[in-house]
Amino acid sequence: MRSEKLIQKVLRGVRNEKIGLAKASDILKGLPSLDLEFANIDCGRYARCGFPEVIYCEGKTVGQIRRIAKEMFTNEGLLLLTRLSAPAYRSLKKTFPLLRYNKLGRVAYYTKKKPQIKNEKAVLIITGGTSDIPVAEEARATLEMMGNKVNALYDVGVAGIHRLLNRMEHFDGAGVIIVIAGMEGALASVVGGLVSKPIIAVPTSCGYGANFKGIAPLLTMLNSCAPGVAVVNIDNGFGAAYMANLINNSG
Amino acid sequence: MRSEKLIQKVLRGVRNEKIGLAKASDILKGLPSLDLEFANIDCGRYARCGFPEVIYCEGKTVGQIRRIAKEMFTNEGLLLLTRLSAPAYRSLKKTFPLLRYNKLGRVAYYTKKKPQIKNEKAVLIITGGTSDIPVAEEARATLEMMGNKVNALYDVGVAGIHRLLNRMEHFDGAGVIIVIAGMEGALASVVGGLVSKPIIAVPTSCGYGANFKGIAPLLTMLNSCAPGVAVVNIDNGFGAAYMANLINNSG
Amino acid sequence: MRSEKLIQKVLRGVRNEKIGLAKASDILKGLPSLDLEFANIDCGRYARCGFPEVIYCEGKTVGQIRRIAKEMFTNEGLLLLTRLSAPAYRSLKKTFPLLRYNKLGRVAYYTKKKPQIKNEKAVLIITGGTSDIPVAEEARATLEMMGNKVNALYDVGVAGIHRLLNRMEHFDGAGVIIVIAGMEGALASVVGGLVSKPIIAVPTSCGYGANFKGIAPLLTMLNSCAPGVAVVNIDNGFGAAYMANLINNSG
Amino acid sequence: MRSEKLIQKVLRGVRNEKIGLAKASDILKGLPSLDLEFANIDCGRYARCGFPEVIYCEGKTVGQIRRIAKEMFTNEGLLLLTRLSAPAYRSLKKTFPLLRYNKLGRVAYYTKKKPQIKNEKAVLIITGGTSDIPVAEEARATLEMMGNKVNALYDVGVAGIHRLLNRMEHFDGAGVIIVIAGMEGALASVVGGLVSKPIIAVPTSCGYGANFKGIAPLLTMLNSCAPGVAVVNIDNGFGAAYMANLINNSG
Amino acid sequence: MRSEKLIQKVLRGVRNEKIGLAKASDILKGLPSLDLEFANIDCGRYARCGFPEVIYCEGKTVGQIRRIAKEMFTNEGLLLLTRLSAPAYRSLKKTFPLLRYNKLGRVAYYTKKKPQIKNEKAVLIITGGTSDIPVAEEARATLEMMGNKVNALYDVGVAGIHRLLNRMEHFDGAGVIIVIAGMEGALASVVGGLVSKPIIAVPTSCGYGANFKGIAPLLTMLNSCAPGVAVVNIDNGFGAAYMANLINNSG
Amino acid sequence: MRSEKLIQKVLRGVRNEKIGLAKASDILKGLPSLDLEFANIDCGRYARCGFPEVIYCEGKTVGQIRRIAKEMFTNEGLLLLTRLSAPAYRSLKKTFPLLRYNKLGRVAYYTKKKPQIKNEKAVLIITGGTSDIPVAEEARATLEMMGNKVNALYDVGVAGIHRLLNRMEHFDGAGVIIVIAGMEGALASVVGGLVSKPIIAVPTSCGYGANFKGIAPLLTMLNSCAPGVAVVNIDNGFGAAYMANLINNSG
Amino acid sequence: MRSEKLIQKVLRGVRNEKIGLAKASDILKGLPSLDLEFANIDCGRYARCGFPEVIYCEGKTVGQIRRIAKEMFTNEGLLLLTRLSAPAYRSLKKTFPLLRYNKLGRVAYYTKKKPQIKNEKAVLIITGGTSDIPVAEEARATLEMMGNKVNALYDVGVAGIHRLLNRMEHFDGAGVIIVIAGMEGALASVVGGLVSKPIIAVPTSCGYGANFKGIAPLLTMLNSCAPGVAVVNIDNGFGAAYMANLINNSG
Amino acid sequence: MRSEKLIQKVLRGVRNEKIGLAKASDILKGLPSLDLEFANIDCGRYARCGFPEVIYCEGKTVGQIRRIAKEMFTNEGLLLLTRLSAPAYRSLKKTFPLLRYNKLGRVAYYTKKKPQIKNEKAVLIITGGTSDIPVAEEARATLEMMGNKVNALYDVGVAGIHRLLNRMEHFDGAGVIIVIAGMEGALASVVGGLVSKPIIAVPTSCGYGANFKGIAPLLTMLNSCAPGVAVVNIDNGFGAAYMANLINNSG
Repeated sequence: MRSEKLIQKVLRGVRNEKIGLAKASDILKGLPSLDLEFANIDCGRYARCGFPEVIYCEGKTVGQIRRIAKEMFTNEGLLLLTRLSAPAYRSLKKTFPLLRYNKLGRVAYYTKKKPQIKNEKAVLIITGGTSDIPVAEEARATLEMMGNKVNALYDVGVAGIHRLLNRMEHFDGAGVIIVIAGMEGALASVVGGLVSKPIIAVPTSCGYGANFKGIAPLLTMLNSCAPGVAVVNIDNGFGAAYMANLINNSG
Repeated sequence: MRSEKLIQKVLRGVRNEKIGLAKASDILKGLPSLDLEFANIDCGRYARCGFPEVIYCEGKTVGQIRRIAKEMFTNEGLLLLTRLSAPAYRSLKKTFPLLRYNKLGRVAYYTKKKPQIKNEKAVLIITGGTSDIPVAEEARATLEMMGNKVNALYDVGVAGIHRLLNRMEHFDGAGVIIVIAGMEGALASVVGGLVSKPIIAVPTSCGYGANFKGIAPLLTMLNSCAPGVAVVNIDNGFGAAYMANLINNSG
Repeated sequence: MRSEKLIQKVLRGVRNEKIGLAKASDILKGLPSLDLEFANIDCGRYARCGFPEVIYCEGKTVGQIRRIAKEMFTNEGLLLLTRLSAPAYRSLKKTFPLLRYNKLGRVAYYTKKKPQIKNEKAVLIITGGTSDIPVAEEARATLEMMGNKVNALYDVGVAGIHRLLNRMEHFDGAGVIIVIAGMEGALASVVGGLVSKPIIAVPTSCGYGANFKGIAPLLTMLNSCAPGVAVVNIDNGFGAAYMANLINNSG
Repeated sequence: MRSEKLIQKVLRGVRNEKIGLAKASDILKGLPSLDLEFANIDCGRYARCGFPEVIYCEGKTVGQIRRIAKEMFTNEGLLLLTRLSAPAYRSLKKTFPLLRYNKLGRVAYYTKKKPQIKNEKAVLIITGGTSDIPVAEEARATLEMMGNKVNALYDVGVAGIHRLLNRMEHFDGAGVIIVIAGMEGALASVVGGLVSKPIIAVPTSCGYGANFKGIAPLLTMLNSCAPGVAVVNIDNGFGAAYMANLINNSG
Repeated sequence: MRSEKLIQKVLRGVRNEKIGLAKASDILKGLPSLDLEFANIDCGRYARCGFPEVIYCEGKTVGQIRRIAKEMFTNEGLLLLTRLSAPAYRSLKKTFPLLRYNKLGRVAYYTKKKPQIKNEKAVLIITGGTSDIPVAEEARATLEMMGNKVNALYDVGVAGIHRLLNRMEHFDGAGVIIVIAGMEGALASVVGGLVSKPIIAVPTSCGYGANFKGIAPLLTMLNSCAPGVAVVNIDNGFGAAYMANLINNSG
Repeated sequence: MRSEKLIQKVLRGVRNEKIGLAKASDILKGLPSLDLEFANIDCGRYARCGFPEVIYCEGKTVGQIRRIAKEMFTNEGLLLLTRLSAPAYRSLKKTFPLLRYNKLGRVAYYTKKKPQIKNEKAVLIITGGTSDIPVAEEARATLEMMGNKVNALYDVGVAGIHRLLNRMEHFDGAGVIIVIAGMEGALASVVGGLVSKPIIAVPTSCGYGANFKGIAPLLTMLNSCAPGVAVVNIDNGFGAAYMANLINNSG
Repeated sequence: MRSEKLIQKVLRGVRNEKIGLAKASDILKGLPSLDLEFANIDCGRYARCGFPEVIYCEGKTVGQIRRIAKEMFTNEGLLLLTRLSAPAYRSLKKTFPLLRYNKLGRVAYYTKKKPQIKNEKAVLIITGGTSDIPVAEEARATLEMMGNKVNALYDVGVAGIHRLLNRMEHFDGAGVIIVIAGMEGALASVVGGLVSKPIIAVPTSCGYGANFKGIAPLLTMLNSCAPGVAVVNIDNGFGAAYMANLINNSG
Repeated sequence: MRSEKLIQKVLRGVRNEKIGLAKASDILKGLPSLDLEFANIDCGRYARCGFPEVIYCEGKTVGQIRRIAKEMFTNEGLLLLTRLSAPAYRSLKKTFPLLRYNKLGRVAYYTKKKPQIKNEKAVLIITGGTSDIPVAEEARATLEMMGNKVNALYDVGVAGIHRLLNRMEHFDGAGVIIVIAGMEGALASVVGGLVSKPIIAVPTSCGYGANFKGIAPLLTMLNSCAPGVAVVNIDNGFGAAYMANLINNSG
């Protein structure tokens, strides 16, 4: 039985007082995980965390991805695949003809129902440079699928800070801001000093030499002299989006 | 003139249509900073970021702290001092008799008006061990002063994970969760897999050997296999609280 | 003369009191190493350590591997080759038609006699994710060849910890547990807090960004707040299996 | 009610078939943790892991230690305190007159019943130098309290390897070997090549310059070219002993 | 013979054509160094590099400093002592009554003739915070002694960037800018994007946790996305000043 | 409207007193940035920093580079492209037939008017070895395009220091020196002890083993015992040239 | 004029008292370096250091190598090329038909006169494993060309230390020992404790995981608890040989 | 029986053909180590390595040092104690009235017979700065006790390289050179390019900021572009001296 339907059945049972609260909770939390040969799908994630498991495709064969995706879609009615290569997408498209793909962000998704915008406030995504855009697009696709308005300001790094200052009106409608920057990553501190919104900072591995594949902006963002900045892993656009969605819809 | 009063005057001018919106914004954003001999107080922080500048006391003399505090209090009507030693607190107490001190968290604060709880949802603070409590108390004092309900679960690390599982009802009333852990910092991932709330993770420098003064839990938290976790600097209880307040009151 | 036969001869001599204990020990420990052009095979390893030398294939040509394997097999009657590529395996198969290959774990082995299960207790292998399976299979093949029962729980990481908690009955029959995890590696601490069995933890290089090719889970596991956890090198499935076998059969 | 007595009661219930197995297990695993103001004592550790929680004293005041110790002793009937300073020991001695102290290892312990030797096989502790002895003594005291025979070979590092080779008879009676070394930590590899016993390696922070407070021997031990070696945290004598006890008594 | 007088004599010889150019150069470059018991004073530094050797006092006794200072002063007619503690200064003051001391910067200096301002353009020193001021004062004292105008903007970090933007007129009169910042060090990139002047960036060890004693701002500054920024060692106010003086007077 | 023409118009307006100074400055600093789909060209860089934005080509497609280059050239009348591969250059050449390419330095540039030498003093570029030449050529091309005389001494590292000492006459005509070295990077300290000119040091990733891709010479140069040395990022020939140009033309 | 002939002419001049000692020394030390387009050959190296410059081929084109080699051979009458690929060797062979190549060590050399053994004592090269042999062969070829007897013990690492102990007679005839090891590098300490000969230790990048491309054995060797061990760069077989030759022929 | 006398007896036995060579070797190598409570003195070190064990005093109590020293002196007739504090020296002096102490180098030594100079060639010790002298004196005292001539050039770092070039005649009489430098450690490369003698390089922890307690000069020395340089641990003056003595007396 599919988890969505089970959940509805349980909830109806609760409304009708046929299922006690404690028991309902037990059922929901105890949703059996699905044991494939090589993966153990967490079917209770939706009940527990509000969003089903996401398929991280790096290091999996197309065959493995397809098999996990089938089970996930059967159970949850929606799919989110990250770090998916274009050839793998084209192959999966045959099984899921409606699967959509964000090529720059290497994210594919498919939902039975069109995502509903849950909040008038947007998530604003800002990048320091052009090379940070793939990480930004991974975040954008994830956020849109989760039902968020998304605005973006790309390539507005501190070397030409007026590009940012001239566009400060974009800050007003935002509930959360995601700042994505490589090289030295100073953009997060600067934005943090200008607004009173929670900022998720994503260091990227763009840069060379003493950038050390993202360590430099990672340290910069962790040490931000402006408060209101929290950091996710290097190049982790999905993680920033997931966190931003939790915040934007926590009200 | 004090910034709070100025702000009110400007806002009244706006309501009466005596001050245009653009001009009002300019005034508010252009609040002059106050130039002491050794510090340059950012008087526009409240207007821009919703909270006045905080005084980080490490490396400042009691004389410097007192002088900055006087100016801040005159302008903003509230004070928050972090990393304040007990002797320095006792000395400042003579100038600010109502200053309150959280000894474990080494935080002092004073507000003219009692902070109003702005949100029914609490911020839940969880620590892995007993040694993480000072960082947790720094966060708690900051949050309370900013008008948040705070709940705490101390010493519930993963070595005895039932201590956490038995108290999962605390998760329900929380709008944000702060997870504070040293040693290997695994607690953030575990909590991240159990709830659908934004989690702010704080690595601490508690531990020895390969803990490397907090690097081990920092890396653990950045790599959390559960999404919905963002990280602040090592031992940065204040930073976690500031971020949590922004999130909790962003609705 | 082959080391196995020599060992038997020496042991018979000891039983018949034809060889003194001291002398027997000297012979066994002094087994000459075999000097090939490019390798110096340690023929006394079996006598000294209970298992013959293992052939680590990375960086060796198929020709070198074949030559060492021939000598080893002639002397010891069994073969274990780790980090062996599939093409190299296919080539060796011509020389050793009965050689078996674990493709995921990249391990090949061949024993004259089928390995005898020496202990009713199993070794339980647990992985955090799907990408950790190759390391787990390297461990599994090594353990089976050494005569251990092996059970496995794959993809039960802490992001969905109920997948682990639901399967705790697997812990009961295990004498030793191997925990294999990449990303942040929190699984070892969690398991360590749940059981009273020795745990061998293997960090893997699966992950990205601040995972730093396995440094993050390595530090996590070394700092485990739960005791009863010891760590081997990153991705070292063979090393974990070797250690687990020593423990499982030490009774 | 004390956990030991509860356990006996539950076990009698099981024997009399008054308590089902599943329920008994639930009771044992669900032993409530004890919530002090600053600590959350894990009272189920004995049932779950075979040994009660250990009190790590670094960073705790004597008052905190005493309060935790009282609760622990009341519940479990035994006490193990690690990283305990001599003055703190003298103060605690007034409350627990029978508390014994290993000064070098900074470990104190007290058991109602004298520990029973559970296994004829000893744990052999080897150190590279004189400066590694405090870590060794932390391990020795822990092991003795847990009911193990302990033998020791101190200061037999590889700079004079005959000191080790001359004493190889000590290896024979050992079920597990703990190798403790600072500087470059080569001793673990050398011992690993000589015996067929599980080896727990403990890097120490003894050394200077490029020793980097234990990083050098830590890396050496993780990369040991001899298999059968697993590693615990730098200077973690207690952790090595805990693991060795699990192994020695796992048969 | 004192190096200054020797230099004048040589130069007169050149003017009178009594000393050939090549020989004069040889004499000047070959000025004998002065061999004390524990130091080897480089008496040719003035001729070669335009400024005599500077006495770095950390790790030297007051006796050693005094002896080197006497020789230096006799030869060069000026003295610059860096990292000089206040007690050492008070002791040296007895020997050099006119020695001046910058207490915050821990720099002492004495010149026979008052330094002449060599250039109308000032060196502008900017710090991110109050804790960076000691490094700034080390730079300021060095620059003034070398004959530069110095302006300073302290505590104008990016958390309140308007403090900097409001004072941009200070940039106009500057020939070189020194940017000193701890925490994340983003200030250098921001200034680099606003002006067309050479910027010397000095990371400071102010900060905590992932600041790693200045590594975070060091990496930030090396990776500055704005060009025109070069970096000196952590906390090296003297080095920045020396470089700035070379640039300011290179025209 | 092109930024150059706008600037001229504004300046004429200032001369004719038709535009006030404040307003002129506002116009110049507020030059709108140009928003392409994937980049946000900073059109005010020339007015603010004296040189237009430079196109860093690594990680951009030829299509993106061409589009940015067209806009830049239309606005600024000059082009500088760094880290440009030879195939990308050949493709761009079709659009910009006069584009010149420095193959070793992977730099292309095109200026409507031939660069005017602005200063009689040259920039001297010194490399330690042959492998450092690509970085040196990146610097040389940048400097020449910016209107500087350039001299070069290649392969004069400290292993044969007479190669440097024999050519010290090259130092005399230089206003700034760029020292480029890999391996251990000692050349910067040696040159710093010989001259009184500002030195920009560039560590390169040439070397192996403990060179760690440029970390060794980076640390060497930051710790230079000779003052007057400031450092840019590893392999950053462009950055060194940009800084050297600012210094050379700051008089 | 070729440096060898010049040297002979100078020496004859000295013998005939036609050239004073000081002048002779000046000439020899001042041998002009040879300025190619891309390299600056140090022709005085032989006079100064006893061996001409060696051509490190990594990162040079075959054309560059050939041109440098021609000049070197014309001047010095001998050639040593390290890190030379097999294809590059085959191409150079057409120009230098007598060039010999050590394929494993990737070293080519050619001397007009056959190297004379200068010392009865050999240099003994020991490796821990088979994968260390390329580094060992680089050392062997270098040593032989410089006129040293070379003995070798390959694959005698500490996992089977009897392989080393059984061959200790090889130590007797050696004047210097080169120990080459990857993984954990413990072999250097063990050999250092067994002999009274100078030991040059070479860490190699052979290993995986926490070997960190040679950092683990590098730290091991620097921290050797046995004295008499000095270390060269990771994988630097040539450097070890050069040092060993200096020592072996220093008597 | 004392090892020295035993050695003589064995050697006489060999001369008289009363003891076979193999047996003599066995006796000499098998000299029993002396088992104190806390140390295991290696009495065969003299026979095996040509010098008795040295007492490293850091981390030992005066009582432990005294007890080891007594045994050592009784057996070997000579004593070398490194890292010995002045108070500990004064206390030991009562037991060994003839013990001599090098205060700067913190080395004490005592030999029954005055050390004989074994070689006309000196060991030359060079330091970069004044702060490196304690490490140099540790080396000097060790070398003198082992019977070497020692020359020293202190404070001749590359910031004033003529101080070194002016003293190159000191190089001629040296058999080995020890180069000791902190900060960036460039001195080793420079000396390596000037002479044909083996160089032992010692990085020191003198410096600040990016010196990282000696890592900077350590990397510099390992990457030396001049061959003929091998490196010992940071601040390890004794290790350098031990190695230099082996080389100087290896002829």
